[in-house]
Amino acid sequence: MIANLDALLSPKTIAVVGASPDLRIFRGRTLKVMLGHPYAGRIYPVSRSHAEVQGLRAYSSVAAIPEPVDLAILIIPAEAVPDELERCGAAGVKAAMILGSGFAEAGGEAGKALQARVVAIAERHGIVVCGPNAEGYANTAAALCPTFSPAVDNLGVPLTPPWRTRGHVAVVAQSGGMGFSMFDRGRPKELPFSYVITTGNEACLDCFAIVDHLLDEGKTDVFLLYLETIRDLGRFERVAARALAAGVPIIVVKIGTSEAGRRASLAHTGAVTGDPAAYRALFRRHGIIEASDIDDMVDLAAAFSLFGDRLPAGNRIGIGSASGGGGGWLADACVAAGLKVPLLDAPTRALLDARIPSYGSSQNPVDATAQAIVQAGYAELARLIVGSPEVDAVIMIVSARLTASFEKEKDKLAAIAAGPKPVLLWSYTLPHADTVRLLSQAGYPLFTSMQSCARALAAMVEYRAARERR
Amino acid sequence: MIANLDALLSPKTIAVVGASPDLRIFRGRTLKVMLGHPYAGRIYPVSRSHAEVQGLRAYSSVAAIPEPVDLAILIIPAEAVPDELERCGAAGVKAAMILGSGFAEAGGEAGKALQARVVAIAERHGIVVCGPNAEGYANTAAALCPTFSPAVDNLGVPLTPPWRTRGHVAVVAQSGGMGFSMFDRGRPKELPFSYVITTGNEACLDCFAIVDHLLDEGKTDVFLLYLETIRDLGRFERVAARALAAGVPIIVVKIGTSEAGRRASLAHTGAVTGDPAAYRALFRRHGIIEASDIDDMVDLAAAFSLFGDRLPAGNRIGIGSASGGGGGWLADACVAAGLKVPLLDAPTRALLDARIPSYGSSQNPVDATAQAIVQAGYAELARLIVGSPEVDAVIMIVSARLTASFEKEKDKLAAIAAGPKPVLLWSYTLPHADTVRLLSQAGYPLFTSMQSCARALAAMVEYRAARERR
Repeated sequence: MIANLDALLSPKTIAVVGASPDLRIFRGRTLKVMLGHPYAGRIYPVSRSHAEVQGLRAYSSVAAIPEPVDLAILIIPAEAVPDELERCGAAGVKAAMILGSGFAEAGGEAGKALQARVVAIAERHGIVVCGPNAEGYANTAAALCPTFSPAVDNLGVPLTPPWRTRGHVAVVAQSGGMGFSMFDRGRPKELPFSYVITTGNEACLDCFAIVDHLLDEGKTDVFLLYLETIRDLGRFERVAARALAAGVPIIVVKIGTSEAGRRASLAHTGAVTGDPAAYRALFRRHGIIEASDIDDMVDLAAAFSLFGDRLPAGNRIGIGSASGGGGGWLADACVAAGLKVPLLDAPTRALLDARIPSYGSSQNPVDATAQAIVQAGYAELARLIVGSPEVDAVIMIVSARLTASFEKEKDKLAAIAAGPKPVLLWSYTLPHADTVRLLSQAGYPLFTSMQSCARALAAMVEYRAARERR
Repeated sequence: MIANLDALLSPKTIAVVGASPDLRIFRGRTLKVMLGHPYAGRIYPVSRSHAEVQGLRAYSSVAAIPEPVDLAILIIPAEAVPDELERCGAAGVKAAMILGSGFAEAGGEAGKALQARVVAIAERHGIVVCGPNAEGYANTAAALCPTFSPAVDNLGVPLTPPWRTRGHVAVVAQSGGMGFSMFDRGRPKELPFSYVITTGNEACLDCFAIVDHLLDEGKTDVFLLYLETIRDLGRFERVAARALAAGVPIIVVKIGTSEAGRRASLAHTGAVTGDPAAYRALFRRHGIIEASDIDDMVDLAAAFSLFGDRLPAGNRIGIGSASGGGGGWLADACVAAGLKVPLLDAPTRALLDARIPSYGSSQNPVDATAQAIVQAGYAELARLIVGSPEVDAVIMIVSARLTASFEKEKDKLAAIAAGPKPVLLWSYTLPHADTVRLLSQAGYPLFTSMQSCARALAAMVEYRAARERR
């Protein structure tokens, strides 16, 4: 099983069945997206009508390809899929990704029958099949993107920030659009993704089989899952327990809290979403973190990505700010998220008072005032606040609009980010992309949503408690 | 009173007391920010040490300025403010903005005494005084920005989108940082701001006196308020009732739901925040909308800015999507916000089914599939959904990453936005700035947060109900 998931996710040879020179259609776009990245394996277009596709020699069938094929990407009409999968099996193909729609999710008997045939053929030949109705995947380490998602096409930056060697995030999603949207939203925040994998109808292979494989592989430190349903509860429980034991957090959105959401999922991937309260209880039991919006998921992942190895020992937060107004607002948001914002201890306050003008405040939130930020800097204030025995983590409120002041403080900031307590940054102005990059290099996630920032810390506190409860 | 607020907010002549050539300090920055905009009035630096400041002739005192002064900006140490204000009064200055800190918010008796002197002098001379401890303001129509906020410095785009002739948003804030952050976050979303006004300690002039004045002026269609306290409850009730009668929504954040937030506000502007539950009830009674985060405030304002004159008749939402997964997620978010996502009527579904492939769905959420978006377009699908008698408003889920497809549909989209029901767009990918601009020109707010999008519609429904309850 694991060997075959390697064939699916880390293939050395790939057949693209249905590959086309027409870049306006999925059959052409998928090959183009793949060729836009420096994947080191070999790609073989399979086409009945072209001898060459997008500069590559094409083959009339999978069987005609001159070496064993690890993975076949099937971008052909639903009706043609079972026979093609049969041919793949006969040719010794180890894994297949079915991108087309028109199977069980279409609602009719014909689609269900097609999907049943896919399952039977896959089992008979021992092929690992992802989909149908999937949008492919991205394996960033392999620079392999067999997908038509525009999110990984013409990116303009590397698939992952080159300076990130740990804290990788894998997206596993039952929706292609939502799965790749997490990459699309997270990449400009310098979030390092290991994989984005979309599973569609999950006829053979479900999300948690993939999570299980990625836990084995050991290159992923945070999971982001988009779930409409959980198809194998036993597997879910085993994998969730494994992830919790390994300290690899799973952040999920689970669709179906409304009747309309349940209806949508059934039509989308044939998913029966189930009872939302039961799912909520199940997630809580396994330390699985629920998020509410795409950015919320990305922001939670960003916090775990950088500070997952230093979860706060408790829920007491220190807040330092250049904006007195921002300090009060964030304090309210932290308390609403279940955190505490206690008064700092007298020695810490004395150190802060020596650097803050009289119209500021050292109490917590620390209103440093713009003047102290200019004179002492964010790093020095963060260093003093994080040193207080009264706090388990710190949020610094910054204006990340301009990069220059952070450039000056970069080394000091990096030293604080490497310390034992998490220090998050929330910018009340829109950050400049250069500031985001600089701060990421210094070891910081930079939040723009104060609610997500507060929730991220609360989630870290809860996750630590869930691990300790085990 | 109104005449004097004109002197404060729309002056013809301004003295900048304390103006400096040093651009690293507030005294220099404020003049620089002012000179960076094509303000048509006359600006007079007042300096004891320079004959010329930033290319303008400087005067040794306000009295030496050769014409009557409407507004004096005081950027001088707190201890020097009362005497300077006295001199302004003697010279016939009509209004003053005090940017410096060190008054009642500093906590000591000396600061309180200084602030009391300011009040007494202002009353004796009949000067309208804004602040102290304020961050100035921006009057976009006058291109006037007496503030040191970087948010209106070197903007790179006009202060308001030139194509927006209605739906203007005024920010009135007891925090300079938070007030200008709303501008900073909203301007890239093409939100048209009329004013950003920061009031600091509100020694003489409070937020609601300013709202009252702006209602008289009639150029503002939505208010965004950052409040730590309400200093004159009677005035608040009169002004809130007036705004509701005029159909100008007020969106607020009120600090102080936590002990730490209350502490922060007291230190920040000397504000006693009061009982959060009582405030919540007060806001509900007056149809005032509470928001939770900076982006949430901006997003709510964006919806009212474009559709405030066509509030939805009820809470039934139609959802159209290229992403089936996005449809389910957004449906859940809408229902969580108090909206309904009903099944569409049979005639509308028949029209949709003719354009959607069999593996999509016309039920609601309408899963149009990427194929139907390419073939029929967002506009055609939105037109069909908004035509259903079962829905009061529509959210279209789009990918605004690329601009080209919207360019083609621009006129059709504009026609739908001009219709009787609100149509909002939520993008699951990060929008390109060109798409945001194009859609704004077509009459659409473009949301990136699905929760804010759902809340915006819910707020519009509630606001209509509050108006009808009156």
